[in-house]
Order: sequence, then C-alpha cells, then structure tokens
Amino acid sequence: MRRDKDLLGERELPDEAYYGVHTLRAVENFPLSGFRVHPRLIAALALIKKAAAEVNGEQGFLDGDVARAIVRAADEVVAGGLADQFVVDAFQGGAGTSTNMNVNEVLASRANELLTGGKTGPVHPLDHVNLHQSTNDVYPTALRIAAVWLLQPLSEACAALQADLQAKEAEFAGVIKVGRTQLQDALPIMLGQEFGAWAQAIARDRWRLYKVEERLRQTNLGGTAVGTGLNAPPRYIHAINERVRQYARIGLARAENMVDVTQNADVFVEVSGLVKTMAVNLGKIAHDLRLLSSGPRAGLGEIVLPERQAGSSIMPGKVNPVIAEAVNQAAFHVIAADLAITLAAQSGQLELNAFLPLVAHHLLGAMELLTNTAVMFGDLCIKGITARAEHCRDLFDTSLAAVTALVPHIGYDRATGVAREAFVTGRPVSDIVREQEILDDEAMDAVFEPGALTRPGIAGRKPGR
Amino acid sequence: MRRDKDLLGERELPDEAYYGVHTLRAVENFPLSGFRVHPRLIAALALIKKAAAEVNGEQGFLDGDVARAIVRAADEVVAGGLADQFVVDAFQGGAGTSTNMNVNEVLASRANELLTGGKTGPVHPLDHVNLHQSTNDVYPTALRIAAVWLLQPLSEACAALQADLQAKEAEFAGVIKVGRTQLQDALPIMLGQEFGAWAQAIARDRWRLYKVEERLRQTNLGGTAVGTGLNAPPRYIHAINERVRQYARIGLARAENMVDVTQNADVFVEVSGLVKTMAVNLGKIAHDLRLLSSGPRAGLGEIVLPERQAGSSIMPGKVNPVIAEAVNQAAFHVIAADLAITLAAQSGQLELNAFLPLVAHHLLGAMELLTNTAVMFGDLCIKGITARAEHCRDLFDTSLAAVTALVPHIGYDRATGVAREAFVTGRPVSDIVREQEILDDEAMDAVFEPGALTRPGIAGRKPGR
Amino acid sequence: MRRDKDLLGERELPDEAYYGVHTLRAVENFPLSGFRVHPRLIAALALIKKAAAEVNGEQGFLDGDVARAIVRAADEVVAGGLADQFVVDAFQGGAGTSTNMNVNEVLASRANELLTGGKTGPVHPLDHVNLHQSTNDVYPTALRIAAVWLLQPLSEACAALQADLQAKEAEFAGVIKVGRTQLQDALPIMLGQEFGAWAQAIARDRWRLYKVEERLRQTNLGGTAVGTGLNAPPRYIHAINERVRQYARIGLARAENMVDVTQNADVFVEVSGLVKTMAVNLGKIAHDLRLLSSGPRAGLGEIVLPERQAGSSIMPGKVNPVIAEAVNQAAFHVIAADLAITLAAQSGQLELNAFLPLVAHHLLGAMELLTNTAVMFGDLCIKGITARAEHCRDLFDTSLAAVTALVPHIGYDRATGVAREAFVTGRPVSDIVREQEILDDEAMDAVFEPGALTRPGIAGRKPGR
Amino acid sequence: MRRDKDLLGERELPDEAYYGVHTLRAVENFPLSGFRVHPRLIAALALIKKAAAEVNGEQGFLDGDVARAIVRAADEVVAGGLADQFVVDAFQGGAGTSTNMNVNEVLASRANELLTGGKTGPVHPLDHVNLHQSTNDVYPTALRIAAVWLLQPLSEACAALQADLQAKEAEFAGVIKVGRTQLQDALPIMLGQEFGAWAQAIARDRWRLYKVEERLRQTNLGGTAVGTGLNAPPRYIHAINERVRQYARIGLARAENMVDVTQNADVFVEVSGLVKTMAVNLGKIAHDLRLLSSGPRAGLGEIVLPERQAGSSIMPGKVNPVIAEAVNQAAFHVIAADLAITLAAQSGQLELNAFLPLVAHHLLGAMELLTNTAVMFGDLCIKGITARAEHCRDLFDTSLAAVTALVPHIGYDRATGVAREAFVTGRPVSDIVREQEILDDEAMDAVFEPGALTRPGIAGRKPGR
Repeated sequence: MRRDKDLLGERELPDEAYYGVHTLRAVENFPLSGFRVHPRLIAALALIKKAAAEVNGEQGFLDGDVARAIVRAADEVVAGGLADQFVVDAFQGGAGTSTNMNVNEVLASRANELLTGGKTGPVHPLDHVNLHQSTNDVYPTALRIAAVWLLQPLSEACAALQADLQAKEAEFAGVIKVGRTQLQDALPIMLGQEFGAWAQAIARDRWRLYKVEERLRQTNLGGTAVGTGLNAPPRYIHAINERVRQYARIGLARAENMVDVTQNADVFVEVSGLVKTMAVNLGKIAHDLRLLSSGPRAGLGEIVLPERQAGSSIMPGKVNPVIAEAVNQAAFHVIAADLAITLAAQSGQLELNAFLPLVAHHLLGAMELLTNTAVMFGDLCIKGITARAEHCRDLFDTSLAAVTALVPHIGYDRATGVAREAFVTGRPVSDIVREQEILDDEAMDAVFEPGALTRPGIAGRKPGR
Repeated sequence: MRRDKDLLGERELPDEAYYGVHTLRAVENFPLSGFRVHPRLIAALALIKKAAAEVNGEQGFLDGDVARAIVRAADEVVAGGLADQFVVDAFQGGAGTSTNMNVNEVLASRANELLTGGKTGPVHPLDHVNLHQSTNDVYPTALRIAAVWLLQPLSEACAALQADLQAKEAEFAGVIKVGRTQLQDALPIMLGQEFGAWAQAIARDRWRLYKVEERLRQTNLGGTAVGTGLNAPPRYIHAINERVRQYARIGLARAENMVDVTQNADVFVEVSGLVKTMAVNLGKIAHDLRLLSSGPRAGLGEIVLPERQAGSSIMPGKVNPVIAEAVNQAAFHVIAADLAITLAAQSGQLELNAFLPLVAHHLLGAMELLTNTAVMFGDLCIKGITARAEHCRDLFDTSLAAVTALVPHIGYDRATGVAREAFVTGRPVSDIVREQEILDDEAMDAVFEPGALTRPGIAGRKPGR
Repeated sequence: MRRDKDLLGERELPDEAYYGVHTLRAVENFPLSGFRVHPRLIAALALIKKAAAEVNGEQGFLDGDVARAIVRAADEVVAGGLADQFVVDAFQGGAGTSTNMNVNEVLASRANELLTGGKTGPVHPLDHVNLHQSTNDVYPTALRIAAVWLLQPLSEACAALQADLQAKEAEFAGVIKVGRTQLQDALPIMLGQEFGAWAQAIARDRWRLYKVEERLRQTNLGGTAVGTGLNAPPRYIHAINERVRQYARIGLARAENMVDVTQNADVFVEVSGLVKTMAVNLGKIAHDLRLLSSGPRAGLGEIVLPERQAGSSIMPGKVNPVIAEAVNQAAFHVIAADLAITLAAQSGQLELNAFLPLVAHHLLGAMELLTNTAVMFGDLCIKGITARAEHCRDLFDTSLAAVTALVPHIGYDRATGVAREAFVTGRPVSDIVREQEILDDEAMDAVFEPGALTRPGIAGRKPGR
Repeated sequence: MRRDKDLLGERELPDEAYYGVHTLRAVENFPLSGFRVHPRLIAALALIKKAAAEVNGEQGFLDGDVARAIVRAADEVVAGGLADQFVVDAFQGGAGTSTNMNVNEVLASRANELLTGGKTGPVHPLDHVNLHQSTNDVYPTALRIAAVWLLQPLSEACAALQADLQAKEAEFAGVIKVGRTQLQDALPIMLGQEFGAWAQAIARDRWRLYKVEERLRQTNLGGTAVGTGLNAPPRYIHAINERVRQYARIGLARAENMVDVTQNADVFVEVSGLVKTMAVNLGKIAHDLRLLSSGPRAGLGEIVLPERQAGSSIMPGKVNPVIAEAVNQAAFHVIAADLAITLAAQSGQLELNAFLPLVAHHLLGAMELLTNTAVMFGDLCIKGITARAEHCRDLFDTSLAAVTALVPHIGYDRATGVAREAFVTGRPVSDIVREQEILDDEAMDAVFEPGALTRPGIAGRKPGR
C-alpha cells in the first residue's frame, strides 16, 4: 500500500494503482452507473497532457526530465495503455475534474515509474502534469478532440452503408413494383429507386458529418478556469494549441472568445442533433425494410432479408428481421441520448457547464453506437438482401398503380372506369384495357413499360415532352 | 348555399365559403387541436399554384383566361388575402392533402369569381389549379419555402439580440466581478465578458441559421405522387421549378433524386435541431440573468433587470424576471417541438411521410416563437439591464477570487496561507497581502489590476510573456 | 378611454376592456405564442375567486355588497362569460401572476359594473378580489381543478372508444387470420382478439385516468406566497378550501405541507406521464390499423377503414387512413408535450416553480387533444371498420401459421417437413397433411379448427388438458 | 471445442462456453452497445425456467432427471452463477429471443454437466428448458419480475433519503431565512421547512413506487407466441403462473387477456413515467442545494454541503457541489431513458413489441441508477449538510421579506413606505419600524417572531384567528 493525501486527508492506495487519492475519492463519491469514461476521451486528455508537458519543458516551466517522462507516459495512454486505471464512473459531478485528475495522477505515477521505478517521485499530478491547465479548459477541448476522432469511423461506416445501398440500387434497378404512400398502393416505382432514396438520405448524413467537424474545432485551451486565461502565459497558450492541433491531426484553433467556449455547450447540441438526424434516417430505412420483407406469405414479401439466426425452431422461412430491429432500437437510443445532451447543455450556469460528463458520455456513446449500427446494418443485412422480383411484378400487375398513366391518353373518366372495373373484378388493368380495346397493343406497351412509368413525363409519349 | 361533390357524395356549402367539399370533409374529420395551418405555409402553396398556372398556361396545358384568373387569385392569397378560408385543423391526416385541397378550392372559387362573379365557373380545383401536381410534391416544397421565409426574421431577431448583448458587453467592459463555476466563487471576470460570451453564442446561432437555408433548397417539385414524376411533363417540371425559385426569391433547386425528397424528412430534423440549439442558448442566457439579478438583497444582485410589470403590490424593488422566465418557457417548448418533429420524421413509411403536417406545425411554429422570443428578450430585457458595479466590486473584494493570481508570485503555499486567513477572518485578500507585506504596493496593484486579472497571462507580469 | 395605474405608472385602457393595467402590461410583455390561456383554467380561477369573496364576506373581511358583486361576476366567468377579456399569452413569465391579475381585474370591473354601471367603483382587483390570496396558491390550485375537470370528458371518450373496440371484438370474433410477430407470419389469431387487445389497453387507460384524479386533489390554497400561509387567517384557510371543494365538485383537500405543494410540480409530471401512456396506446392502435388496412391489393388488406374523404381523384378504392394518421400525430404531440411539462417541472427553483404556465398550457392542452382524438378515432374510424374475412382466411390458409399446431401430434421433425413442403410448393398446409395422410380428416379438422387454434391448449385435444 | 448447430448450420464453441450456437450468432449479429443484459432480467428468466421444469416434470411432460437437473442449474443462475455466460448485447433485435436462447442454452449445458459431467447430454435447450414457452411470453414476464425486484431497493433508498431530509427538517426547524420565489426575495421561511418540502416530494415518490408494483403484476405466461396460448396445456398454464408467483415472491397473476399483454408495452411507459417523476424531484432538490450552497462569499451561502473531494488546489473553502451535480446528471439520464422507453413502446406492431430489449435496458437501468443516486445523495450529501444559521438570519434581517407581515397591522400604504425606506437606505426593516415608532416593541416582537412569520395566520395576532 502507498499513501497519498489531499485537502481532506490521507488515504491508502493499492500498490498496483497508478491513480491517486483524487481518483479514489471520485470512485467512492460516484458509485452510480457502472459506465466507464469513453477511452477516446481519456486518450484525448492524455494527448493534451503530452503537448502541455512538451511546451512547458521547452519554455522552461518544467524540468526536462520531468517533461520527457510525462510525454512518454502520455504516449502510452494515448495508445490505449493503462486502460484499467481510468476508473471513475462516467456519471460524475465536478464538470470533468475527476476524470482530469484521474489522468493527471496516472500519468504522474507512470512518469515517476519511468524515472524512479516506483510510483512516487519527482512528478506531481497538479504541479507538473496539470501545469497551466484547468479542467475547465482541457476537458472541453478533449471532448471536442474525441468527438472529431469518432466522427471519422462514423463517416466511414456511413460511406460503406451508402455504397451497400447503392449497390442494391443498381442491382434492383429493373424491378418494377407498387409504390406506397400512406401504406396504400400508389404509383409504380422501381425497387432500385427505393434503395436509391435511402442511399441519398445516407449521403446527406455523410455530408452533415463532414461539415460537423468544423463546428468542433474551436477550443478554449489556455483559458484556464473561466476562459480568461489567468495564470496561463500567452506564449504557452499559443504553443499548446499549435502542438495539440499537430498531434491530434485536427484543424483545431483557439477561439477568440475563450470565455464563451468555456461555458457554452451549444456546439454539442448542434452536433448531437446531426447525429440524431442520421439515427432518424437509419430508423426509417430499417422500418421500411421490415415492412417490405414482411410475410413471407401474409405480408408484402417484396424482398428477403438475409437470415442471421433462427427465428423459430419450427417454421422454416420465418426470417425475423433482427438486424433491422436492432437498428431501430439503436436509433431510439440515439434520439434519447440527444435529449440527455440537450438537458445537460441547457442547464449550464454562468462560467461553466458542470454537466459536460453526461454530454461526453452520450455524445461519444451515440457516435460509437451509430458507427457499429451502420456497419452491422450494411454487412449483416443490406448486402444480403434479395428481391422477389416476380412477386413484386405480380403485385404491380394486379394493383391499380398503373391506371394513372392512362389519364393523359384516355382522360379521367375512362381511366376511372377502367380502374373501377379492375377493382371490382380483381383483374389486371392491362387485361381490361386490352379487352375493351382502349389502346392498341403498341400504345399499351409503351404506356405500361416499367421504365416509362417510373420517370418524369407522360408514359407512352416521347421522353422530353 | 351552393353544392359541391366528391366521390363520397354531394354536400352543401355556405355561399360565402370559397373552400369546397374536400375542405368541408377535412374540417369535419379533424376536430382536434384548434390550431390553424401556418399562414406562411398557405402563402407558399399559393405561390406554387401561381407558378404552376402560369407555366401551364404558357405551355398550352391551361386556357389563358383560366391561368390568368388563377394567378390573380393566388397573388391575393400570397399577400394574405382570404385568410379566414383556410380552415382545416393543423393536426390533419393525409400528408397535407387537406391543406393542398383547401388551397386548390379557395383559389378555384376566387378565380371563378374573377371570371364570372360567382364561385362556380370554368376553373376546377383539381383539373386546373392542381394540374401536374400532387400534394406529395407541392406540400413538402411549400414547407421548405415557408421555413426559409421564416428564417429571415429569425435571423434578424438573432442579429438584433446579438447587438443588444454586445452593447452591454461594451457598457460593462470595466465592471470587475467574481466569476462562478459550479455556482461557486471562482476567478474574476468582467461583467462585460459575460455578456460577450452570450453574444458569441448567439452569433453562432446566426451562423447556423444562415447555413440552414441551403439545407432547405432542394425540392421535389414535379415529382408528383412518389417522386418519379409520372404524368408531369419534363418541360413543365423544368419551368415550374425555375418560376417558383424566382417568385419565392430563394435559391431553390430541383433535387436530382426526387424520390428521396418525397419520402425523407431528415432535413426538417436537421433544421429543427439547429433551431433547438438556439433555444438552448436563449434558455441558458435567461437562466444566467435570473441568477445574476437574484435578490435584491438576499441574492447575487449583480445586475438589475428592467421592471416590466408589478411583481407584488407590497414589496418595492421586487423585480420579477418575467421576461427571462418567458424565454425559458419558450426554450422548453422548442425543445419539445424538436421531439415532435423527430417522432414524425422517423415514422415516415416507404414513399411518403404522412406526418408532415405535424412537422410543419412545429417547425414553423418554433421558428416564429423563437423570433418573437428573441425580439422580446432584447427589447424588453437585455437593452434595459443595468449593472450594480459597486456591489460587483464589493463581492469581488471580499471573495477569494483573486488569490489565484498570487500563486505565480509567491507560490502555492503562501497563497494558500493568504486564502485561509482571508476565509477565516472574512477580510479582503488585498488587506492581508498588504498587512503581511507580501508584495509591495506597486506589485500588488499590478497583480490586482482588474484588466490583468481577466486576460491571459500572469497578472502583474508584462503582457505577452 | 379609462385610466388605470400600477407601480410603473398610468396607462389608458379602451372603454370596452374589463381588464386593467396589469393585464395590459402582460399583453405587451409577452407577444410570444398567440396561444390563449385554457378557458377551463380561467373558469377554475374564477371559481376560487367566488369562493374567496363569499368566505371573506361571511367572515367580515369584505363588505357584503362588494362580496356579492364579485360572486356574481365570478359566476358569469365560470359559465364562460367575458371570454374575450382573457388576453394574456399562454407563454407568460411570472408563474401565472399575469393570468391571476387578468382574472382579478376582469372580475373587479364586472363587479363594479354590477354595482355602479361603470367599470370603476368600490371593488378593487387586489384588495378585494385577491384578498388573502397569492398567485402562488390560487394558480396551482386552479390548475389542479381544471385538470380534474378535463379528466372527465377524457375518461368518457376513453370509455366510448373502448366500447367501440369491444363491439368490433364481438363482431370479428370468428374471423380467423394470421397473427404477426415482428411483422412475420406467426400463429393464427382471431381478428376479434386483436380488437380485444386494443380494447384492453384502452381499459387500462381508463383505470389510470380514474386513479389520476386523487393525485390532483391536494391543494395549497391558503398557503399564500411560499406555502407558509402568512397573512391568511386560519379560519379563512379552512373555509375557502371547503367552499372550493364544494363548488368544484372535486374531493379537494388542503395539503398538510403547503410549502411542498407550492414549489413542487412533480404531480403534473406524474399525470402527464399517464396521459402520455394513453397516447402511446392510441398511437399503437392507429399504426396497427394502418398496417392491417394497407393495400387494397398490394398490402395486408385484412380490414377496410371507413372512407372519410377522397384520397385521390383517379384511383377508386384508395382509402387513405387519414383518421389513423391524425391519431398518430396527436400521439406524437402529446409525447412532446410530456417533455415540455417535464422540462418545466424539473426547472422549479426553491419556493416556487415559475414555469407553471407552460405546464398548464401543455397539460390541459394534451388532455383536451386526446379527448378530441379518442372521439374522432371511435366515431370516424373504429365504428366503421369492416373485415375482409375471406381475404383473412385466404392468407391464413396459404400461410404456415397453423403448422405449429401439428407439433404435439406428429412431432417437430414431421411438422418441419410439412412446413418445408408447403413453403417450397406454395400450397396450403392442410393440402399436404391430407395428401400425405399424416392425419385423418377428422383429426385434421379438429386440429385446424379456428377456435382451437386461437385458445390455450393443444389444438385437437380435448379442452382443459 | 464442441460443436453445435441450428438451421443455419454448424458452429464451433469454446469448451468453457455454456452457451450454444444461438447465443454465438446473436453475439456476432449485435456488436452494438457493449452493454450487458441486466443480471436481474437473467435471474428472472432462470426463475421461470425453474418453475417450468418443475411443472413440466410434475405433469409428466419432462423426464424427472432432466427436470431436476434444469431446476438445479436454474437455481445457480438465479443466485448469480455463470454470470459471464450471458454475453448477448443489450441492444438486440428479436424481441428478446436471443436472451431467452442464451438462458436456455446455458441452463441446458449446466444441467447436462450436472447429469453427465460434460456440456452435452440429454437436456435440450428448446425441447426441455423452453418447453411450453415462447420468448414472447417468458420475456415480458421476466421483465415484469425484474422490474418489481428492482423496485424494492429503489423504494428503500427512497425511504432512507426521505428520512435523511426529515432529520434535517427537524435539525433546521428554527433557522429563519428569506424565502425566494422566482429567485427573488420573498416571504420568510424556516430552512427546516425547505427540507420538509423536499422530504414530502420524496414521500410521494415512495407512494408512487409502492403503487407501481400492482401495475406490473399481470403476466402473459402461458400465452406462447401471440398470447392465445396455443400448444401450452391449460393445466401447465395454471401451474406455471402459480409456481412463478411463489418463487418470485410477487403477487403475479395471469392476465385474462394474454393477447393484450403480449403485444402492449404501455405498462412500462406508465412505470417509467413514475420513475421519471422521482428523477424530476431529485433533480429539483439537487438544483436547490446547489443554489443555497453557492458562494461561499459571493453566493447565497445559506448552507454548507459536506466536502467530498478537493475542488481546487488553491482556494480553501471552495466546496464544489459534486454530489448534487451527479444527481442532476442522473436525473437528466432518467428523463432521456423515459423517452427511449416511450419510443420503443409506441413502436410495437400487431401481436408483439419487438423492441422490449431496449425497454428492459432502460427501465431496469433507470431503476438501478436512481437507487444508487438516492443512496449517494443521502449518504454523501444530505446527511452532512450544515446550516449557516447566522448568515441566514443576517440575510433575513436586511431583506424586505418581513414587511408583508406589517400590512394587516399598519395597512398597505405605511408598509410600503417602510419598505421603500428600507430599500433606499439599506437598513433593516425592524430598525425603521422602531425608529418611526410604528409599532411598540412588544407588538413588533410579536409580528417579527420567526415562528409567527412562517405559519398560517396574521403574525402578531393570536393563532387560530
């Protein structure tokens, strides 16, 4: 056991613990959710600590050995090392102080270990690792960095999903089917066009995620406790921002108004709103897929989702749409996470938002969840979808979907007559047109040609008119 | 009484009614909320009808007289005429069909009146006013137009509010006070910096609203029922988009993928998310103002809000922060409206989102509410705020806020000693520094100079180091 | 014009206005939503004023003539009179003060009119109408009363809807069809059982609404500004609660802890949560109806909703489920309203919740909207639903739904074989059983008898085993 | 490695795994959230499996050895054994099928191990462990049981918190202070009364939680796949419900309408709404405590929260209200969880709600989080709060809070004069009353006696009048 102390007194720590008394108290104070702080947030904090140690060393604020040891320790943590030492609950009071102290203490112990072989030594968590910093500037900055880091895989997952949908758009480009508005049979459409519409929605999400990054670039690093920058030397402020920008590989820039960035969390609401928008799109697609694959016999049955697991031990062909259902639930969760973020953000008071830890938990969590969701959706569902083209065609033939295309040729009244006849007798529209000699065969083929029915214009007339 | 009929049969209408049987049935079908459809949505629909009539006339699809009469009728409605004729409840089923029919019927009756003096005549609501259109392309397009129209006053209100806050930022630039993090006394700050931080948040909102417009520009006009454009002549599609763009004075553009735009409502979730972000900022500012003006004696009492109405008949000086409280409630409402929009958007199915009327109600409503809120906030509250500068200074003097500035000069230990002494005795920090001859007067003045305490750097050292 | 003044100065009022300067300022201060304060809230306030005037008169605090005039004026307002005089926006700061003052002023003017023929006279809005009251005790009490009043029609609408669903449960008791879990064909069920399940959910809502009333009965009437009751004579407190209980015809009771009731709004969150639960049930039923009525040809098509308005001018048989869609939107709105109420309630501070006006707007609004929704749903949709029993039977016959019933008779393996054969060939399960002589005709009829397939037990065995 | 197979084919499993191929596929299918299924839900499922094995054994459906082995295995899992074998992600598609199969497989393997020493043997996960069951009846039943189980500690935590608050109510019963409405100084109140109001709100939460249990008691156990009970023998249905009731020690009862209970999730929305209401109360109290403890010098500073961890290394006396901040964040999270539950519940379709796994995750999670939160709040914050009674008294003396009590004695006008004088000069009200000889000393003492100022009646008159 080693001993550590703070203003409240002295405490014993297990020998193997790199964290110190501040962390210990936080663990005891917040036995709440069991959720860990997101590892990318820890990594981002460690990266800032590294940059600060370097800058403070170069500018003569830190002894060279101490600075180098902190840098080495931080490199390890950035790379995922000592992960089991970050033990504070994600739902913590204190505006992130406990997570910041957890990182400070682990880095100090590890730096000491590198210098002395033991966890104590010349490196101090506050005087050295945290030098010229405040939780209130490093924590929001780290949250921005972690968010940008998580945008990248989310963006890639989005791109892959879009590509999967576009592949199906191409594959099903010629599958004519009944369109449905308000769940009622409507004008015809190609199955490929439906996948194309979903792909386009996901393309918008990519664009949004791409644009989001710039919203997250402004930092208050160097603003210290309230954003005014008291006690942070100007040349340190300049250098630390430059260094973090370089290491994080993000176009970060110090905000002109650091007081603002220290206290306002609106940017996270904005970003979360865009992440939520992606969840809305994913949820809509998943719901549509569940509708189109309903059946196999007593549903729409226009597509077949890949079978991922047994739905029932007795009914062959019962493909439960489990992946799509998981997508819907992930979407619901992200919508709820957006609310948690909104609640936390709007509850900030004066110079600080004390609820950033909840924002961090839900924002980073939502990004990672949607990344996993998009990958799962593409790989385990979309890629394996097959069309029941013949069934689509049968439904189209027996529906009244195409009758609208007759109107420009025979007028509303006669078209309505055809439709009524088809509805009452249950026969295909084309049979009735043929039987009543309303159009000759050539004209009818031109009107009822699937391509003509699913693009702008009057089906049966020359395109472009 | 005049008579009108639809597929369900014939109905009588009051002579003075311009609307017809479709509207009448909708009124009977949806006796729900008592909320009217937003007038700007009606205006946007009428504008589309005008453009369609012109184009259809020019391209020979409509008789010239009929087209001209529709155009004149539409001009009246765009200008706010016949407002009492748009009587369908805002909470309507049918994806906007009833509102579209309401507009079609009113314009047809008015056009007939212009031609014949009576409400009946050659102009037909569907065959003429709605020619080449579907609710499913005109309604989402009108919603986009109306949203962009409402962005402008919102943006202006935002700019005015920002200016009001900046005026106070300048006015209070020299008012030193205690900063507060987690509601606890923290480093000093200028009252002007607090207003500056709020102004900056509102500036971000302006930027967001500016960028939002481009998200709303893509239309599916010409896509007809499912976005494929069946029965809409290509040259009509081209011309109608051009004409609407011109009349609406918005950079609208037909989407390449109209099937997508017909069915996906994610753009409205995105826009609502940004509107909600502004609500979060307004709510945070209002809450802060309520905190800072608390008292007058047993609160923080650093500022005085303008007295807008009597709070109590007996206690002079009891200024209830009623404007700020109204701002908070408007913000709560907009957060809830964002949820309604999200729910509606994620519930779209296949080729259409049947719940756009709810989206329209809440999106346009939220924009207008925030516009009113920002104007009220600036004019009736922010503009009239006065600082209790002396009280701010007193609190600053008796607080320990400045002790942090001593650390670089005398080290943590002695600074802590000063702080403890001040805390225990209740005396100002400066007294103790002076008494214990810790710093000479000149040094102390340099350290405790308000400007130095509220900008980056070591207070008492030369700036820039 | 007459003149009225408050602490801020003197203002002119139109002659026809019964309200006074406090109301005027509130109208000018809150030009926000355009929503009026709910009329039942106004009525409940007037009822309290009546009771207070009576009690104050009887106890000698008010002159008899003044008391009687206030009572008469209040009776008129309770009955809906002078409705156009309650002009303050629903989104108002001040914890309801402006609405309370609006009522005080209108009652005073009207009482004066009864006494003097003019709007001025001996009756004073604060000294007399508001005697022994504070907004902070009368407003929350009035909100409780109005909520209970609105529970009654909601409860009746709920009962009627339940009856409508039960009528269909009976009507469709023998319509065998495919059940669907996860939108996939599952065990058979009677169409009547589906309506029965919905009816049961609505029955739970009734029970909840019945139990809710008791949650709203505790009042803080007599607690004055912070719930301590300063300046309210104990005998007045006793009598006013008794009188209000009697006039409101609700089992109201003064809370033991009026400080609690003055500041905590959790009861409204609780009630709203139960109202929201009803919205969830209505939304689920509406969604199910839209699914079951999808088609008419390319959907499930098991039921037909009554046609309420033309969905399209060309396709006969296109019944858009507009009523169900309106129900879904109302449900979304109520879910959002619950969020607004939650936000407002959790933002109360210390001795008062300043945001009760938003709570009132959304709670009373949600109750009324759901009442209208339930009535519309039952009358315009549920009552007119017809079953396509033959189509239900066809889908059932061609599905694999019944194969599970074979398992207890022929074991999993043979049943699976039958199912596969049916799936591959597309033939009915019963044909294959017959053809392969798996069961004799009598046994098969017993197993596949619809009643046996849709109640507990092994189909084909004697019931009860 | 051992091998296991399902309809999709054969897979290898690690020797140490008790779960089988269905679980393996689910793990691969849902790599989403990293959240585990709640252990109490697993325990409740195992309890049902135990009861089913017993009943099936007793009724001759299962071999005695097999039944006994399943029972022993289930006992172990109910007691928390084999916890690491429940590996499916909490965010899973399939309506809970994967969790049910995970339990079936682990129990079968363990039962086999008890019988044969190896993980394979006579016990089959579906044929035996799952006999007469469906995910669709056992999963909702287990969720109800787990929820009731978690209600108990939540209720106890609630009671303890109430007791803590009441202890402070008594402790601070004589601490007179300024009440605040709308954050403005208002009538006086005892600090103890504030704690009493919070205690009363928590008492309501206890009552709600107590009443909630009965809402959760209805089960659909025996309803099998769609609630009709096909393939479940009636005597099994009767016995299993009785047995589960007995083992779970909850007054469970089989619903009359099991079709309803299988498909409708409204009860979880209702329960969640009540849990959310408790979150609203906790959040309000936490916020109030942060306000009252603000300072130490430049805030209200009426109470001191126990110091739980260092807030800053330099400023002694800076007690950050970290516990209260954690409470607020937990409350925000629970409000968001309620939304997730609502979204999932209202998205059920026809005979089943496929999204119960998300409901389970958030409902059980919210209950456990609030339990932890209430314990933390009481133990680490409330219990250690101290009053700054002298400061409270000082603020009271200098405020205008007491002037209202003068009105019944000297009339509005003179009281207003006193208030103005006090406000302008900054002197205590009592000084001015004394100086101007408005009341004699005895009368003034009677009026300004703290007890008289904070209970119903006219301060200075005999109580009861």
